[in-house]
Amino acid sequence: MADTTEQASEVVEAWLKQDDAIDPKKAPKLQKLLAEVPRQELIAIVERQNAVRAALALRLLPRAQSIAVFDALDAKHQADIIDELGNTDVYEFFDELDPEDRVALLDELPAEIADRLLRSLTKSKRDVTGVVLGYTKGSVGRRMSPEVPEILPSMTVDDALSTLRDTADELETIYTIPVTRSDRRLVGVVSLREIFVAQSGVLIESIMQDPIYAHASDDAEETVRWFLPLDILALPIVDDSHRLVGLLTWDDATDIVEEADSEDSARAGGTEALQQPYLSTPLLKLVRSRIVWLLVLAVSALLTVQVLDSFEGTLAKAVVLSLFIPLLTGTGGNTGNQAATTVTRALALGDVRTRDLIAVMWRELRVGMLLGAVLGSAGLVLATLVYGLDIGIVIGSTLFLICSISATVGGLMPIVAKTVGADPAVFSNPFISTFCDATGLIIYFLIAKSVLGI
Amino acid sequence: MADTTEQASEVVEAWLKQDDAIDPKKAPKLQKLLAEVPRQELIAIVERQNAVRAALALRLLPRAQSIAVFDALDAKHQADIIDELGNTDVYEFFDELDPEDRVALLDELPAEIADRLLRSLTKSKRDVTGVVLGYTKGSVGRRMSPEVPEILPSMTVDDALSTLRDTADELETIYTIPVTRSDRRLVGVVSLREIFVAQSGVLIESIMQDPIYAHASDDAEETVRWFLPLDILALPIVDDSHRLVGLLTWDDATDIVEEADSEDSARAGGTEALQQPYLSTPLLKLVRSRIVWLLVLAVSALLTVQVLDSFEGTLAKAVVLSLFIPLLTGTGGNTGNQAATTVTRALALGDVRTRDLIAVMWRELRVGMLLGAVLGSAGLVLATLVYGLDIGIVIGSTLFLICSISATVGGLMPIVAKTVGADPAVFSNPFISTFCDATGLIIYFLIAKSVLGI
Repeated sequence: MADTTEQASEVVEAWLKQDDAIDPKKAPKLQKLLAEVPRQELIAIVERQNAVRAALALRLLPRAQSIAVFDALDAKHQADIIDELGNTDVYEFFDELDPEDRVALLDELPAEIADRLLRSLTKSKRDVTGVVLGYTKGSVGRRMSPEVPEILPSMTVDDALSTLRDTADELETIYTIPVTRSDRRLVGVVSLREIFVAQSGVLIESIMQDPIYAHASDDAEETVRWFLPLDILALPIVDDSHRLVGLLTWDDATDIVEEADSEDSARAGGTEALQQPYLSTPLLKLVRSRIVWLLVLAVSALLTVQVLDSFEGTLAKAVVLSLFIPLLTGTGGNTGNQAATTVTRALALGDVRTRDLIAVMWRELRVGMLLGAVLGSAGLVLATLVYGLDIGIVIGSTLFLICSISATVGGLMPIVAKTVGADPAVFSNPFISTFCDATGLIIYFLIAKSVLGI
Repeated sequence: MADTTEQASEVVEAWLKQDDAIDPKKAPKLQKLLAEVPRQELIAIVERQNAVRAALALRLLPRAQSIAVFDALDAKHQADIIDELGNTDVYEFFDELDPEDRVALLDELPAEIADRLLRSLTKSKRDVTGVVLGYTKGSVGRRMSPEVPEILPSMTVDDALSTLRDTADELETIYTIPVTRSDRRLVGVVSLREIFVAQSGVLIESIMQDPIYAHASDDAEETVRWFLPLDILALPIVDDSHRLVGLLTWDDATDIVEEADSEDSARAGGTEALQQPYLSTPLLKLVRSRIVWLLVLAVSALLTVQVLDSFEGTLAKAVVLSLFIPLLTGTGGNTGNQAATTVTRALALGDVRTRDLIAVMWRELRVGMLLGAVLGSAGLVLATLVYGLDIGIVIGSTLFLICSISATVGGLMPIVAKTVGADPAVFSNPFISTFCDATGLIIYFLIAKSVLGI
């Protein structure tokens, strides 16, 4: 399949790149081309276009196809595109979204457009959207599907099947079915599969299981991290009185994980997540996502200028010391980054929790000392051969200390960040590099002064 | 829910940490405690234990629970634990795994144990496992579920429902149903939901849709990246003759994405992925996952020593120049990392492809020049105020050039890596830092020599 779809997609992409792609006279030809491209490739193509060209492609697609493609885009990108579409398209796309996706889009739109769109919905759709809108950003409630079936424990499997058949149209999923009492309190969960294979006449309460669930106010990422490994298709969501208010479906759950991983990956690299595909991101947005961190880091790096300035006398007496500055600070930064990357990922996956602080510190200290012993010995030998024994001792012992400290600090920082309520990835790799640069230099010159006696 | 499960889990974890946790006399008490912990917390606890303590917990759990927990562990961790379990447990756990999970575990075991386990299976289970084993690591075939229903286009929905009901026990999923001709060629796909809501007597071929599918030999990560955003529960997998050989289910797909993201995150930090939870990873494995990269990077950093060595005359004449070395190389490294992180993630998500090389280069050059203009101006002003105009000019113009080059190179490297068939994340952040260090120093001293006339 890869070959043919790649070809079709390349033709369409090349077409969209032309300056006169938007020429209305050319539209019928492009329309014909677009009709040949399978849906998954269309999504990939539209994701890579700026708002004007994405809107063009969406207008030219068959209606069902363009709704599906629009649905698959990131909310930020959807919001940009809406500006470029006619009102009819906008209302229709908005109407067809699932309530939780509608809310994600509303979050990205200016208030007056959001209001106008909300008013365009039927009352029942507006109500159901309002349920989701009522929860705070980042909570499970904000990402759940508020449309749930009403299945009682006293129903037979036949009743349940016919109820599901009648209401399937309004439901996002019918594969995981929460069971509620008449007051909407959650009492169990049963899969369509279990209902389907059960003998006729069997009561739901005899085949339902204890529900695994989350509260609507729980943190979305944390919930998804424990929920996805359970391989359940949907998680019932309850309010404070244990009443069923929605279902978090697996597809929304995987979106949440992908967003979180993109954000962690971006932060680890010292930039903000784009929240939309790279090629469709305006240039100035790219600059904005990077400049703040870059300035913060440059200002922190002034610390290294200070440190070196205070050792200028030592440096002037032994210029040879300056040759090793990038090597030593670089190795410290690398060791710190390795530890921070490993621990940040472990925190994200729930493999490490904040109460493991001491265990992590003890592990990283030992790992750092082992790494430092290897690198330090190599440094001792090499530097001695080229620059003499005293320089060898300075380099070797500095490497040992830098590795031990950097691994420990790099491993601790993400946990400390999480403990004080910040994002563990906020102590990004560049941040740790800068920190290790400064401490590394101080260690280096203190050792050099005492060994060389200057 | 969070409160009570956290409490129960903390008690059990504290218990498992005790030196005499493995004392058989204490087992009944621990067993009682374990029975109170919900499944998702049990998984989290066992994931964090070393093999001995994980095996202890698994032995004490009710059978159904311990099978479910074992099933949820990473294959590497499963393999470690198997050593600590009795034969009966091992055979039973192995028997209960899905075929694709069984294969993942076999990959981590020594050949003789793998052989013995394979022989312990019934012939039909061995055959079905063999189908998956026949595909290469990293391919979709290796991760698919080989158990598929046989639904023909000529069946009525009633026939299909009763066939599914009869075979549901053997199938991993019955929610996405591939439709095949009698020669097993894939002709369509239909969801259980569509069959379920269709009128009695309707033919499958009239409600089935064109199948979206992948080849068993396709790359697993690439397939999953385009498949998951489509929000389909399972993807039919065909062989070279377009015969249905399996289904890739959404839960295996999310596992593949998580593994890939963990690997990318690790590589970006200059370490190898652990493939098992941090706290259950033996210390020496942690050291091994880091030492190779650290040595490679340290050797590359010798380049910076070389560069500085060749400018030692310049340095001796103006020691003030050495004060800015960490600031300048650090800023270059940060700019390069930002670009590399963004582009690596975009490549992983399919937002950027290798054919976008020129587009990415042109974007990053402009972004880098804008960043360089901001930082360079700040550097010019600050350095002039403290160290005079000529140093200010050197620092300002060096920052501008370093940012422009680092962003361009950082953005290009992941694409170049992918083009030559390597992992884009292999040019990790530390690697790019080291590269930027060396080029940055050369730029710095060339500018300094010409501006200061030394």
